[in-house]
Amino acid sequence: MKCYLECIPCFVKQAVEAGNILSASAKQREEILQKCLKLIINMDRDMTPPEAGMKIHSIIKFITGRKDPYQEIKDYYNNLGPAFYEKYKRKVKESEDGLLSSIRCAIAGNVVDFGVAGEFDAEKDIEKVMTQDFAYFDYDRFKKVLSGSRSILYLADNVPETFFDRILIEELKGKDIVYAVKSAPIINDATVEDALKAGIDKFAAVVESGSCAPGTVLSLCSSDFLETVKKSDMIISKGQGNYEALEDIGRKNVFFMLKAKCRVVSRHLNVKIGDIIFKANSD
Amino acid sequence: MKCYLECIPCFVKQAVEAGNILSASAKQREEILQKCLKLIINMDRDMTPPEAGMKIHSIIKFITGRKDPYQEIKDYYNNLGPAFYEKYKRKVKESEDGLLSSIRCAIAGNVVDFGVAGEFDAEKDIEKVMTQDFAYFDYDRFKKVLSGSRSILYLADNVPETFFDRILIEELKGKDIVYAVKSAPIINDATVEDALKAGIDKFAAVVESGSCAPGTVLSLCSSDFLETVKKSDMIISKGQGNYEALEDIGRKNVFFMLKAKCRVVSRHLNVKIGDIIFKANSD
Repeated sequence: MKCYLECIPCFVKQAVEAGNILSASAKQREEILQKCLKLIINMDRDMTPPEAGMKIHSIIKFITGRKDPYQEIKDYYNNLGPAFYEKYKRKVKESEDGLLSSIRCAIAGNVVDFGVAGEFDAEKDIEKVMTQDFAYFDYDRFKKVLSGSRSILYLADNVPETFFDRILIEELKGKDIVYAVKSAPIINDATVEDALKAGIDKFAAVVESGSCAPGTVLSLCSSDFLETVKKSDMIISKGQGNYEALEDIGRKNVFFMLKAKCRVVSRHLNVKIGDIIFKANSD
Repeated sequence: MKCYLECIPCFVKQAVEAGNILSASAKQREEILQKCLKLIINMDRDMTPPEAGMKIHSIIKFITGRKDPYQEIKDYYNNLGPAFYEKYKRKVKESEDGLLSSIRCAIAGNVVDFGVAGEFDAEKDIEKVMTQDFAYFDYDRFKKVLSGSRSILYLADNVPETFFDRILIEELKGKDIVYAVKSAPIINDATVEDALKAGIDKFAAVVESGSCAPGTVLSLCSSDFLETVKKSDMIISKGQGNYEALEDIGRKNVFFMLKAKCRVVSRHLNVKIGDIIFKANSD
């Protein structure tokens, strides 16, 4: 998906909000804003939103002098992770359909987002997703593809979504699972370290995709990773950034799981902001 | 009130949304955005938000080649105005306290806004304001100042808020009222023509302030108007733009009536977005 004109105010908003979140100085905030505005003026409009987001957040990293500006935020959520895991793992165990319940959990974990999302209340919003109707629900197709698949590529999104991903991955018993994370810190996206903190490595091979954007942009990925994309029987793609990067991937058996968080993506999917999506791609 | 850094994404959003609302061509939309971003980079940060808004919307006017890009929108709401007037005039008549009820109406009319506000549902949002709690409620002071006042300067905001203003103005019987509108079309702010369409001239002298910004920015006003500001016994200031322009006016007996529509103004007032305000200034 290319950037729409409506993505631009959102990038500017992210630049301003990052300054607030990171308690940057007034001078740094103004500098971040100035550099981001200049970047946007000259930006290639054919870029995907995650690529543009990567450029915006590179400016934030450069000006604040921090390689991982969202480290404290990720620490906070990584600390909350085990409690989330216990609570929702129990729900899955008690549910009639463990697989479906764990998919719901994996989507619920997608609510914590310091990029595109507006304000959120993690506990409350996660609970809401647990009972919300799906705007897309390709569960039958998912089960069919799953039963015929040996290898699954699971594209991670954020922290503490990792802990919710683990719940779903544990339900995908007997499959060869590769869990792909970003190759450098970007917003609150998961890195290898975060995947390990959620204990994903006990159930899947954790790899870096090569992308340092807040989405798995294939043109930024390593050749090893592209080989994994090619040879995997099915792909589970988590979150809006991965949807933006891969909605036109043009291969079979990709399943997008996300909460639609902005007007552009919800219009693209023909759903409402806040809707939850469990959607097979159309090849 | 000066522009906050958080006002900047909102200006960019307005530039993009104006392109949508006005069905501008893709080329025009991109040009509006480019020029607005360049403007913002070089913008004096001591400006009030209405001054910055005026500059943004000047670009929109210039590129679309339309003096009053929101004419059709104002026509639409001016056509709805009489029905609004009838409905809410009746509510005031049936109420126990006609003055208070008409003040509530005047604030309810403030919900229609094509500048700062996000999406709104006019009918529903107006009804909501009619029963909502006030976040500020300086009614006793208002009544006291009103009883000692002969001349009232009433600063208009938007269309069709004009029709709701008329309801309040009709309750201010026996006072000399000046109803001040903008001197040129800007977003859906009221002009002389709009005031006449609402029949305000039957109850007040309709004047232009000199300001072509979406707020009564005194430095942009005519000397005649500044004289009126000075000699009026009290001022009723409608809407967020007038609040932003005049919250530090430094004169007695100014009453702000508005719905808080953005994070910056709600933080400035220490209220929540969507709260309704009936506030005496602190001199």
